[in-house]
Amino acid sequence: MSLLDFLIGRPLASSEERAEQIGTAKGIPIFGLDALSSAAYGPEAALTLLIPLGLAGVTYILPISAAIIILLLIVFLSYRQTIAAYPGGGGSYTVARENLGTFPGLLAASALLIDYVLTAAVGISAGIGALTSAVPSLHSKTLLLCLAALAIITIVNLRGVSETGGVFLVPTYLFLATMFTAIGWGVLKTMLSGGAPQAVIAPPSAPHAVEAFSAWLMLKAFSSGCTALTGVEAVSNGVRAFREPTAKTAQRTLGIIIGCLVIMLGGIAFLTHSYKIAATDPNGSNYQSVLSMLFAAISGRGVFYYVAIFSVLLVLIFSANTAFADFPRVCRVIAEDRFLPISFANRGRRLVYSEGVLVLAFLTAALLIAFGGVTDRLIPLYAVGAFLAFTLSQAGMVAHWKRQGGQRVRTNMFLNGLGALATGITVLVVILAKFMEGAWITVVTIPAILLLMYRVRSHYDKTLEQVASPGPLDIEKTPNLRVVLPMQRWSALAKAALCSAFAISDDIHAIYVSGAGEEHDDFREQWEQDVVAPARAANRPVPKLVCIESPYRFVVAPIVDYVLELAKQHPDCRIVAIVPEIVERRWYNYFLHSQRATLLKTNLLMKGTNHISVLNVPWYIE
Amino acid sequence: MSLLDFLIGRPLASSEERAEQIGTAKGIPIFGLDALSSAAYGPEAALTLLIPLGLAGVTYILPISAAIIILLLIVFLSYRQTIAAYPGGGGSYTVARENLGTFPGLLAASALLIDYVLTAAVGISAGIGALTSAVPSLHSKTLLLCLAALAIITIVNLRGVSETGGVFLVPTYLFLATMFTAIGWGVLKTMLSGGAPQAVIAPPSAPHAVEAFSAWLMLKAFSSGCTALTGVEAVSNGVRAFREPTAKTAQRTLGIIIGCLVIMLGGIAFLTHSYKIAATDPNGSNYQSVLSMLFAAISGRGVFYYVAIFSVLLVLIFSANTAFADFPRVCRVIAEDRFLPISFANRGRRLVYSEGVLVLAFLTAALLIAFGGVTDRLIPLYAVGAFLAFTLSQAGMVAHWKRQGGQRVRTNMFLNGLGALATGITVLVVILAKFMEGAWITVVTIPAILLLMYRVRSHYDKTLEQVASPGPLDIEKTPNLRVVLPMQRWSALAKAALCSAFAISDDIHAIYVSGAGEEHDDFREQWEQDVVAPARAANRPVPKLVCIESPYRFVVAPIVDYVLELAKQHPDCRIVAIVPEIVERRWYNYFLHSQRATLLKTNLLMKGTNHISVLNVPWYIE
Repeated sequence: MSLLDFLIGRPLASSEERAEQIGTAKGIPIFGLDALSSAAYGPEAALTLLIPLGLAGVTYILPISAAIIILLLIVFLSYRQTIAAYPGGGGSYTVARENLGTFPGLLAASALLIDYVLTAAVGISAGIGALTSAVPSLHSKTLLLCLAALAIITIVNLRGVSETGGVFLVPTYLFLATMFTAIGWGVLKTMLSGGAPQAVIAPPSAPHAVEAFSAWLMLKAFSSGCTALTGVEAVSNGVRAFREPTAKTAQRTLGIIIGCLVIMLGGIAFLTHSYKIAATDPNGSNYQSVLSMLFAAISGRGVFYYVAIFSVLLVLIFSANTAFADFPRVCRVIAEDRFLPISFANRGRRLVYSEGVLVLAFLTAALLIAFGGVTDRLIPLYAVGAFLAFTLSQAGMVAHWKRQGGQRVRTNMFLNGLGALATGITVLVVILAKFMEGAWITVVTIPAILLLMYRVRSHYDKTLEQVASPGPLDIEKTPNLRVVLPMQRWSALAKAALCSAFAISDDIHAIYVSGAGEEHDDFREQWEQDVVAPARAANRPVPKLVCIESPYRFVVAPIVDYVLELAKQHPDCRIVAIVPEIVERRWYNYFLHSQRATLLKTNLLMKGTNHISVLNVPWYIE
Repeated sequence: MSLLDFLIGRPLASSEERAEQIGTAKGIPIFGLDALSSAAYGPEAALTLLIPLGLAGVTYILPISAAIIILLLIVFLSYRQTIAAYPGGGGSYTVARENLGTFPGLLAASALLIDYVLTAAVGISAGIGALTSAVPSLHSKTLLLCLAALAIITIVNLRGVSETGGVFLVPTYLFLATMFTAIGWGVLKTMLSGGAPQAVIAPPSAPHAVEAFSAWLMLKAFSSGCTALTGVEAVSNGVRAFREPTAKTAQRTLGIIIGCLVIMLGGIAFLTHSYKIAATDPNGSNYQSVLSMLFAAISGRGVFYYVAIFSVLLVLIFSANTAFADFPRVCRVIAEDRFLPISFANRGRRLVYSEGVLVLAFLTAALLIAFGGVTDRLIPLYAVGAFLAFTLSQAGMVAHWKRQGGQRVRTNMFLNGLGALATGITVLVVILAKFMEGAWITVVTIPAILLLMYRVRSHYDKTLEQVASPGPLDIEKTPNLRVVLPMQRWSALAKAALCSAFAISDDIHAIYVSGAGEEHDDFREQWEQDVVAPARAANRPVPKLVCIESPYRFVVAPIVDYVLELAKQHPDCRIVAIVPEIVERRWYNYFLHSQRATLLKTNLLMKGTNHISVLNVPWYIE
């Protein structure tokens, strides 16, 4: 237990909830890392698709970024309203389920869960990828580094919300500071130079154009750039983690996150255009990230460059944290509706939904291992989930306002409707543009998860039906007990077990299993003398001794068979199978005793019926 | 279960013992493979040490082989007598323990057990080594092939004695046939050519001498060659596996094994001398085994050569089988004396001591994995164990005859005394000659195993003392039962558990665990209505409802604490903790229910006392 204390910290009492609640300063690292870090890959993803257009591509990044920023603002306004309407936590699942029905809710939930697993895997692998391109000697350790980063994030999250915010505070604000400095500096230079700044280190010249402008290419670039929007819904899922007034604090946090993201996306688009930075082929030997070229063009490769690149790297790795903050919360809400195992709703020792954290860590590790730590191929998969959830959530909000009515109902409905429309169109665009590259996997996986959730729920319903409302206790019907007691020799343990048997019933069957043709006169004699005689003397019913021959040397099976047979013959009785057991206080003595008691208990439990219970009588060896 | 049937076969009834007993034909593969296969490495091991003497070394192989053969014959005569004297199985352990005392017995046993583990690992690795030198493309798969061979041998042995003999019959007799053919053919050629036969393919010429003759070198060569004697004691351990008349059949089997081995050792020595075959450096690039050079010299590299080499390879791999035949038997005898866990004495479904087979397989696999499948470095370790066991066993026989008296007591004592003396000197020689190369490891490991065995025994003695002879049942002292029943809601399961509680006691404590500050009025109300009211109406004592607040959300710990506290307060009572449990018939539903019942049972068993028993009341979900 002390190792657990060391790793995860002492248990927190339920009453310490308040101390675990967070303000804006910690909320940004916890719920905003995913959104903010997308500044590091969103524009790059769009620019990469524009490579075939040559230098002209750099021009098109401006309208594409503008479209993405507009979409981002629509989604922001929409989620701002959701937070106000659902101060108890308004994830896509809750909003869609309450307003559109169970199916849309679960659809949103499963899309979102897939998206979070992908976010965690891609975030870690992108960050470690950036690290290994900076320090090539680490390249062979990629998977190990990924898993180490995953382990750190998992442990930090298990330590509780407040601690998580503290740990990720420094990298987040370092990243924001360097990004803002670079953008401000670059914009200043551009203005001073009249729109054509001189790069300190010139980016590689853009390749020759091999394709002409086409709407399809623009759509693909736009849908790639849309990965920048994933992570926006995180805050609305986690409203309850915020300090009072929760909704206001959450809204402010979301506002700051989106504000920062808009500045970064806009700034990067503006500067890549004015410095004429085209993306380089990610699979080519001269690959350099857009941010790296941008920093070098603005500041040269000095201290600032390396600090900035390092902070980008940290933020990419820790962007996985947003998934860890939200995945367990989403699972918990679904589990409370019994569509996932109820254990997801249990709060662990640090008031965190530990099972969700661990399941996410497990799934992420599986993905990382399956792909050897390089998850580039997963990038096309994500965004689909996020945008599907966005759409359902916004559509749900429209229904919410319609039902709710109120003063500003039209404005509200318009804002959320606009969000639903914009994100709905984006889903279609993303699926179309990326279907063959992997989006089809998401499209196939979602129904599988949905099916699983429905089966979980139907199992719980069936269980509940069988167990619930049993009516009052019928005291008259207290059943007769018959006791079955296996006994191989007359020992202190056997005696204790037999005493217990006498205490609960007068109908005792002692079972002795012998090998084929084995003599058991010794045991019979001892039985007569030490059991039968005292029972007669005390005028109590004599226990029945049943000897069973076991030709195949099995000991457990004949006892189980006897118990089952007895239960069948006396359906009105309750059978108590006594299992005497020698218990070792020290684990290393475990191997010295036969594990028959454990085997017998397991077998009785597996094959038994509602009328058979097992009384485990232990005897401790000191 | 059907997979187990397929792999290991249907269970054999104890009465089928006779059909599992074997004659000479199957006895040779089962108990003789280790001894016979030593013809393939014993002479080579001696010749390798003679390399520094150049061509002169080939001459010295004659007296060294003669010494080894004489030792072998002495050990044979000695063990022949042991078999006659111990028809129930006369391993070194039994003989030494009965005649010299417990300590020498256990010393012999632990030496022998180490030796068997090494035999298994070295046999498999030597055979696979021969295979990979023949087919170099398999080299990278060495460990995998070793483990596959180990798996095959393990499964065959788990299938029973008779089957094992059948499987290894063909390779054994193929090996004997090719060896005898080669030796007969070579001897004939030598005679016809007047002692200087012409090799079909000449062996590489012997290296130049770099050392002169020394007694130390002879001793080292002799002790290396002595590895040829390991495996001789196998038959005497397994006498009981033979058909009636067991002792005679066993003696005949041993005689044939030793006869074959003597012919092979003598023949190889004679022919390496007449063909002037010196060993080649095993680490050199031109390495070729002595047998390979010999076969090539006699027959050229035709079909015969390849068949012969292939049979050597099979016999080397399967020589591990002798260890699998004997290790479980030795463990079983020791376990019956309670110096090893008693489970070693249980016969599995195929009448084999399965646990010994599995433990040997596990230890061998661990060695193979630790050494990557190349266990050359282990060769110096083995022989020590075997010869130590030989010595103790022969010395025990001397004491046996002395006590027993009888007609031929002097001859018998002389034969076994000679055996003890010869093998005793050999142990010293082997330890001296190979101490630094690894024999010290055996010398250190034996005391560790001895210590373990004594601790196992003392634990059993202590247990027995606490459990045995409890005296007759005191029926008057049947204890009062107090029942503790955890209850979180009023369900069919809770009702069944409460019915059981009423059936066994009038003193019932129902425990309700609530979170800090949680309301539980609903439950109280239902309790009053569905439990208290019917109990009052039936004029039965009302169960006590205990509500416990759990600030850290733990549920199991407060219940366990309550039970322990109650047991402390009422030392004269027996506490029955009822654990209601929802049981799933399908394993994949396992995750859908909290595992609190399992946790509670485990915790109660771990922390409990002799006065606390656990009544598991299951409720099956159909």
